[in-house]
Amino acid sequence: MREPKAFLMDEPLSNLDAKLRSEMRTELQQLQANLDTTTVYVTHDQTEAMTMGDRIAILDAGELQQVATPLEAYHRPANRFVAGFIGEPSMNFVDCDVEGDTLVAEGFRYPLAEAAADAVAESAAVTLGIRPEDVTVDVEGASDGDHTFDATVDVVEPMGDENVVHLSIADGPELIATVDGLRQIEAGATVAVTLPENAVHLFDGASGEAVHSRSLDDAELDDSRV
Amino acid sequence: MREPKAFLMDEPLSNLDAKLRSEMRTELQQLQANLDTTTVYVTHDQTEAMTMGDRIAILDAGELQQVATPLEAYHRPANRFVAGFIGEPSMNFVDCDVEGDTLVAEGFRYPLAEAAADAVAESAAVTLGIRPEDVTVDVEGASDGDHTFDATVDVVEPMGDENVVHLSIADGPELIATVDGLRQIEAGATVAVTLPENAVHLFDGASGEAVHSRSLDDAELDDSRV
Repeated sequence: MREPKAFLMDEPLSNLDAKLRSEMRTELQQLQANLDTTTVYVTHDQTEAMTMGDRIAILDAGELQQVATPLEAYHRPANRFVAGFIGEPSMNFVDCDVEGDTLVAEGFRYPLAEAAADAVAESAAVTLGIRPEDVTVDVEGASDGDHTFDATVDVVEPMGDENVVHLSIADGPELIATVDGLRQIEAGATVAVTLPENAVHLFDGASGEAVHSRSLDDAELDDSRV
Repeated sequence: MREPKAFLMDEPLSNLDAKLRSEMRTELQQLQANLDTTTVYVTHDQTEAMTMGDRIAILDAGELQQVATPLEAYHRPANRFVAGFIGEPSMNFVDCDVEGDTLVAEGFRYPLAEAAADAVAESAAVTLGIRPEDVTVDVEGASDGDHTFDATVDVVEPMGDENVVHLSIADGPELIATVDGLRQIEAGATVAVTLPENAVHLFDGASGEAVHSRSLDDAELDDSRV
């Protein structure tokens, strides 16, 4: 009977099982579209946040970290917290020192092109971030190029549609890559792992703020949902 | 102090948040590997079932549906229940009549090659199943070939790493496709949707039993986890 200016929903679906939750999500989206009333929706569920929100606000311990469209938050996270919070499996992080235009960690040297090198010029330490779907795995194992590393496959978790591949760079950091579920990658194998420069995020080591985000056309952040 | 022949764990991680759950999952896997004791692990969580089990047993209302390796259950489900239960988003299903070697539903005709046609020869009705990652979407919209259909994009749910695309075949069934997160697909667009014959599952309409599974080398079901 009321016509409120806004609705507040606080984890309305958290006690439902997966299938019912998915159905209710669609129903709430249609309801919201029909009512055309601003709705603030609180959730811990990433699928709900990504798919239901026109914009999402990400909080850490009560402090606002970023307000953005879901794809902006995913591809241009404001800081390391947001980058690690959104996405499953989480973004990979490698804590590095800055030596000129090269990021350096134990067993790991990653040269930066000019734009990225400029972005970290004032940072003593930088965290390199890359999402698991952007890490490429070559089972032929040939390591070539500045951004390719020899690595060992520790564990392969088959999910059906994708394989979650746990990797250790020789004497260096551990990474997770997601690859197509039908690709044959064996635990114990030596592989070549590439971290493409256009997919790399850089965060200031002290503040955690993003100083450089992955390359992306603005069109790729276009939010074309109904 | 005891040395049991088996451990039974009943949803041990169900009350943990996503990050802690994932850590505990790894820890339990290592514990089990060290103890080397058969462990029966009860879970509703698909990620746990797929990644922790050497074999999984799927039950419906107390009745055993299938015992198989995770990838067998995913790629060669014994029946429609298992096919729909494992995988997120769920497998697409289209209920069809059988007319000779063609599956027919409203707005939908799907010719079968000989092996598949033989498999459904004794079924009056058949459910065609195809996983969202196997549905290909061509935004150029050119419909050609027996297994390609004109469709409209109803909703695109951007998840970051992938887009979940809700499609309606003209006057026909609705489907869900998952495509790369950086692909540009707009809601409202007309597209060509292909259901590749080698990715199609067929279930008897009456019993729900699988009569034909997707093409796959046995090597692709090889379970190469540590």
